[in-house]
Amino acid sequence: MSLLTVGSVAFDALETPFGKTDKIIGGAATYITLAASYFTKENNLVAVVGGDFPKEMIDLLEDHGVSTEGLEIVQDGKTFFWSGKYHEDMNTRDTLITELNVMEHFDPIIPESYQGTEFLMLGNTVPATQKLVIERMAKRPKLIMLDTMNLWMNIALDDLKSVLKLVDLITINDEEARQLSGEFSLRKAAAKIMAMGPKTLIIKKGEHGALLFQEDRIFFAPALPLEEVFDPTGAGDTFAGGFIGYLASTDDISFENMKRAIIYGSAMASFCVEKFGTERLVNLTQEEINARVQDFVNLSSFEIQ
Amino acid sequence: MSLLTVGSVAFDALETPFGKTDKIIGGAATYITLAASYFTKENNLVAVVGGDFPKEMIDLLEDHGVSTEGLEIVQDGKTFFWSGKYHEDMNTRDTLITELNVMEHFDPIIPESYQGTEFLMLGNTVPATQKLVIERMAKRPKLIMLDTMNLWMNIALDDLKSVLKLVDLITINDEEARQLSGEFSLRKAAAKIMAMGPKTLIIKKGEHGALLFQEDRIFFAPALPLEEVFDPTGAGDTFAGGFIGYLASTDDISFENMKRAIIYGSAMASFCVEKFGTERLVNLTQEEINARVQDFVNLSSFEIQ
Repeated sequence: MSLLTVGSVAFDALETPFGKTDKIIGGAATYITLAASYFTKENNLVAVVGGDFPKEMIDLLEDHGVSTEGLEIVQDGKTFFWSGKYHEDMNTRDTLITELNVMEHFDPIIPESYQGTEFLMLGNTVPATQKLVIERMAKRPKLIMLDTMNLWMNIALDDLKSVLKLVDLITINDEEARQLSGEFSLRKAAAKIMAMGPKTLIIKKGEHGALLFQEDRIFFAPALPLEEVFDPTGAGDTFAGGFIGYLASTDDISFENMKRAIIYGSAMASFCVEKFGTERLVNLTQEEINARVQDFVNLSSFEIQ
Repeated sequence: MSLLTVGSVAFDALETPFGKTDKIIGGAATYITLAASYFTKENNLVAVVGGDFPKEMIDLLEDHGVSTEGLEIVQDGKTFFWSGKYHEDMNTRDTLITELNVMEHFDPIIPESYQGTEFLMLGNTVPATQKLVIERMAKRPKLIMLDTMNLWMNIALDDLKSVLKLVDLITINDEEARQLSGEFSLRKAAAKIMAMGPKTLIIKKGEHGALLFQEDRIFFAPALPLEEVFDPTGAGDTFAGGFIGYLASTDDISFENMKRAIIYGSAMASFCVEKFGTERLVNLTQEEINARVQDFVNLSSFEIQ
């Protein structure tokens, strides 16, 4: 089945305890579509960049089977730019620069050829823009998944709540789940958030794994303990991309299959953090992915006698 | 098989966002032996209390099959007393009062009838005392497990390193693992700690579960997402007690069985935090434990097709 991803394509400049980069390709939709490309063949992208965005980066997406028909290029505009520096523990970071540039007036146009896409992934961006995308789909997708962040809870909570009513699944981190619900217990938080609209909720806990909630069911997916986290940028988006890419490729949105999808998403995220930016993500083999998924099986399987 | 637990039996006074207690029974060895009592029938205790320790509390242990022959009562002394207050997030707490009392001169005498015990659990206490216990065992136990904490890394690191050489398995939390090893990555930390002596290491991550390391094998056990954590006191000791009690009852120290033991330990810990102190721990049924273990199976099982 086909996947449509809407979100940011950007330049990132990153600094971690291991080194720093110049402007490299980044943005939620970049990580999502690249991760999903290992699963689904119909991988559609709606995003906006400026005239400064190099053709090689567009080719990189196309080479991974990502359709860039929906990638708007504003010739006299500049691409969204984010720069950040990670602290020693890799769990916290400072934003050094945020230049919205062409993202400030992002008007997501859905190409005619993308209409009918069954799986819709709304990468983290302005909630009103996410809502606009849903309204512009001629036919409601089979599954709509949304990523968001604390910024929108602070400055656009009503818009966020409005779009939450329209989606099937949302993914946020533990702190955001607590902020959105006002509950410290993640179990209570999940119940409150699901009551806002989405039937399914994924709470990401970074190095501590992820929780999948649906009705009264819970699944806990571990994170792989890594020797080294080199650069966490994009890990959450890569997780989301692997997750929804797997769902789209199997065309199965049962809870059991979502459990598998979370493991695939976690495997993709575990690759992402091994190198800067998308470096590790762009040259994976199916064998590497299968072996990594097997690591997750070994890590978490046990039998009660 | 039989289990010997050496550690503190104490009075605790607790304050959480949900309420506060007067002096109730506490101490590492109390939680460990109570949790283990649901698995192993030969449950031996070496500890010290003062003349102020009520007979009902000793009867409580005896009623759970814990042998208190090794419980020294210093008639003119006072029982170890700890008082603490938990913060809103339940993950951090302030110690209000610590009165070592009779624990200050704890000389662990092993009754003759305890000699030959196959499983030895050294609850968190002065490393030199833990070492003394090992030296006083006429025959080396089949498995020696040790719990410790950051305090001993700060004030008795050489003693701690000395006893680590003599034990098979240690259990510490993630922050302590990082402190002891000087490594942030838990995988690197585990390798360094295992090089200090213990072949097996459990890193407890509280609400984020636990990691079991042995040679190049890793197992990740989830924690059950709870509606409410009422009082975390003793959760780590209860986990350790359930773990080693299960190992002792099955007399199987393979890695596969340790994975099961971690699930049983986690199940016991999940009960512990539901009420103040040992309240929930003293009246469990085997059916409740089995049902809780099944919750862990449901929480973490998935199948890759």
